[in-house]
This record gives sequence, C-alpha cells and structure tokens, in this order.
Amino acid sequence: MRIARFSIDGNVAFGAVEGEGPDGLVLDIIKGIPFADFELSGTKVPLSKVRLLPPVLPNKVVAFGRNYAEHAAELGHEVPDAPFAFFKPSTSVIGPGDAIAYPSFSQELHHEAELAVVIGRMCREVPRERVKDVILGYTCANDVTARDVQRREKQWARAKGFDTSCPLGPWVETDLDPSDLAIQCTVNGEQRQLGRTSEMIHSIEELIVNISEAMTLLPGDVILTGTPAGVGPLSVGDEVAVTVQGIGTLTNKVIKRG
Amino acid sequence: MRIARFSIDGNVAFGAVEGEGPDGLVLDIIKGIPFADFELSGTKVPLSKVRLLPPVLPNKVVAFGRNYAEHAAELGHEVPDAPFAFFKPSTSVIGPGDAIAYPSFSQELHHEAELAVVIGRMCREVPRERVKDVILGYTCANDVTARDVQRREKQWARAKGFDTSCPLGPWVETDLDPSDLAIQCTVNGEQRQLGRTSEMIHSIEELIVNISEAMTLLPGDVILTGTPAGVGPLSVGDEVAVTVQGIGTLTNKVIKRG
Repeated sequence: MRIARFSIDGNVAFGAVEGEGPDGLVLDIIKGIPFADFELSGTKVPLSKVRLLPPVLPNKVVAFGRNYAEHAAELGHEVPDAPFAFFKPSTSVIGPGDAIAYPSFSQELHHEAELAVVIGRMCREVPRERVKDVILGYTCANDVTARDVQRREKQWARAKGFDTSCPLGPWVETDLDPSDLAIQCTVNGEQRQLGRTSEMIHSIEELIVNISEAMTLLPGDVILTGTPAGVGPLSVGDEVAVTVQGIGTLTNKVIKRG
Repeated sequence: MRIARFSIDGNVAFGAVEGEGPDGLVLDIIKGIPFADFELSGTKVPLSKVRLLPPVLPNKVVAFGRNYAEHAAELGHEVPDAPFAFFKPSTSVIGPGDAIAYPSFSQELHHEAELAVVIGRMCREVPRERVKDVILGYTCANDVTARDVQRREKQWARAKGFDTSCPLGPWVETDLDPSDLAIQCTVNGEQRQLGRTSEMIHSIEELIVNISEAMTLLPGDVILTGTPAGVGPLSVGDEVAVTVQGIGTLTNKVIKRG
C-alpha cells in the first residue's frame, strides 16, 4: 500500500494511493493514523485536488554517512568500518513540491538522493531478525547538504540541518523489498546519480540495529540510508528529482531563501 | 522567576518556584504555558509533593562543541575558529532526579556540565541585538557523552544522543545575566569541573546568531553552550550534580541500563 499525507480544505489526513497514471490517482482517506490498525473510509479524492505533505512528521531523522563505497571515494574519504549517524531536525523536513530554500551561509548546495525508512512503532535495541517488524515502509529522501559548510564544520548540524534540507516523499510504500532498488537523482531532467540499494555497505537491518542500540525510535521517525555516487551542485531555479524504484519520484525546486 | 515543570496526581503543569530552602519551596501553578502571556493561579503546592520533570520538552537540543579553550585542550583538540554544533534528540532528555542509564555499547561515559539556554519563541536569522528577545531563560544541563564511541564515530549521534544522555533542570531561571556565572560538576560530592561562563569562546549571542542563521528555533528548544575543563568518567552508582550559579543544581544517578 502507498500511504500519502495531504491537506484538503485546510484539513490534514492520510490516504491510500490507488489507480494508475498521473491523472488517474486517487486517495482513499484513512480513518485514524497509519501507525496503528486502521481502515480505509471508502471516501476517495483525486490526487490532483490535494496538496501532498511530507508523508510523516518525524520526531527525528537519523541519517547514515558514507554507506555507498563509490560516494565515499568521490568525496575523498575512506569507507568507515562501522556505520556512523547524524541527525536532521524536524524543522528541516519538507514535502513533495515544496521549495528547497538556498541558505545564505552556503555557496555550494548539493543533492544526495537516498532511500528513506519510515519507522512504524516505538522500539529500542531491535534485534536483527525483528527489524522488519518496526518498519512501516519506505519513501524517497534528498539529504540536501551545504558541502562548503560541511567541509568547514566538524559536526554537521548547520551543513545538513538547515530549514528545507530534508525533502521526503511522495508517499510511504509499505509493500516493498528494499534490497535491490534503483535510486536515481535528476537535475532539470538530466541524470546526476544512479545507484542500487544492493550497493549499500551496511544493510538496513545493520543500520537499525546500530542506531536502536543507542536510542528509542518513535513512530514516524525516519532513517536515511546513505547516498550513491554522483552528488553535485544545485542552483537557484533547479528542479531536483529523486526516484526510488517501486516507490515514486520526489520533486523539489530550489529557490533563493526569502 | 524560576519556572518548573512537574507532575502531580498524574497531571503535568508548570509552576513558579517560590520560597527558600530545601523544605520551604513551593510551586505557584501557572495558568497556561510559559511560552505565552501567563498568570499565576495562586494555587500553591510544596515542591516536596511533586515530581519535577525536564523543565521543557524540546523539539531539538542544539549543542555546541569546544566552546571553552581549556576543555578543547584537555581532549587534545585545537580551538575551532567558528562555532560548530550537533544535535541531541528529544528522546535523550531526562529531568532532575531521573536516572542516566549507562548504555551497553560504551565503557567510558563522561559528564559535561553546561549552561543551557531555553528558547522562548519561534525564530530564525536572529540578529545579535535581538537574541535576548528569543530567550525564555536558563537551566543546567549535562551533555553526557560516550567518549569511546565519540572517538570512533565521525558524527556523534550515538555518542551524544543515546537515551538519557541529556539531563536538564531543575527549572528555568528567567531573570539572570548569564555572562559570568560559575559552572560546577561534582561526582558523589567531589568536585570535577569548575569554570565560569565568562570563559566561553563564543558568546551566547554568537551561538544563537550562528544556529538560527541555518534553522528555525521553536519554543522550548534548548541550546547547550559547551563545557569547561575537567570532564571525566561516570560509573554505575555515581551521583552526578551540575550546579550553575543563580539557577540551581541538577542531580542524576547513573544506573545500569535495564
């Protein structure tokens, strides 16, 4: 099932995405929230009549660095033995179609296309064999990065945590084998990144075991699993699109911060 | 005014701390929340009858590294030219008297006593001269750190973001000049850290200008301003106390994670 979060007539709701093609998609409005047992209402609205929102409102976004060897190499880094993680705050999250606002303190904004894991239930110290039980589903993410600031500052709160630096969407796909999916990033229709999730150094199971060993994950929390090679600059006016096979495409435009 | 957050008979409320001495303190219950205009109810309860909670529930905690030169030196680091920040997640926050649970993945837990700034209103790109307007007040913090993990992992999500790694309290002092206050940390009554906020490399104004240039701060968000020299190990069974002059003392016991 594909679960979208959207606003219509000033109300926010979740809905199951049904139908085919850009004009044929409808949302069957969910009664309740997707983090517990829920039913479809049978009330359907065309996707074209709603505004899609970030598919979840995470308490925290945990992002893993250098999880694709080719990407680590392109930035001149060694591949770390163990995974390492950083946070993107909830204030950095935007949805599909929302604008990425180029921050005033950077002159080198980069795209990083990623597969995002959405946590479905509160959990800590998750054993490897239980990881699948704590996952609600998967969505696309862009770990937008102020590369110049990242080089200068030892910890990445500003470089990767500024407002609008975490586009998520377009929806959460709950029925998906994430082990070998194509991840693509285009800028103005031109391909910049292309990789496969099978190239991850540390698997999704390893990442969730690693972070949940330290901290409680909450429903709606998001895990970013790293970006493949091909990261590069974004400019004001660019349209950047992240596509993960089996999920969909997350598109955002870059604007000057107002 | 000193504003505490507490639970009594299963309800959570804010209250103004009044009176003197360990047995004489009472809480005048606040009508509403301290992030907007509020009144005191006149209904008073003895502090000894309530359980103090973390004085705020931050959406994010932004912590600055190496903001005291002597502390940077004791860890063998150079003093950075510009401030750098990392996040501690909301799931790491505990209150006065709550237990710090020694995590399974570390054998070297350290205390770091800090002055914490509590943000009072939503803000971004705060100019230096307006910083005072976005601050609600000040409290004590312990930036508990898994030092061995911090050395191994390039980014500090696990080392400084594990559950119970962010004790805050005992309350928020709203009327305080933070520019030259003593900060002390004791372990089992023995002094380990002693510094003054006047030794900060980057002032509170600089820190808030720096982080708000990148991201929106929300009411209740917390800024940790760095720790003075003297950080050192914590063991299971230790009682660690952070005292900031003019605020009070935040005491927590270290337990084995259950």
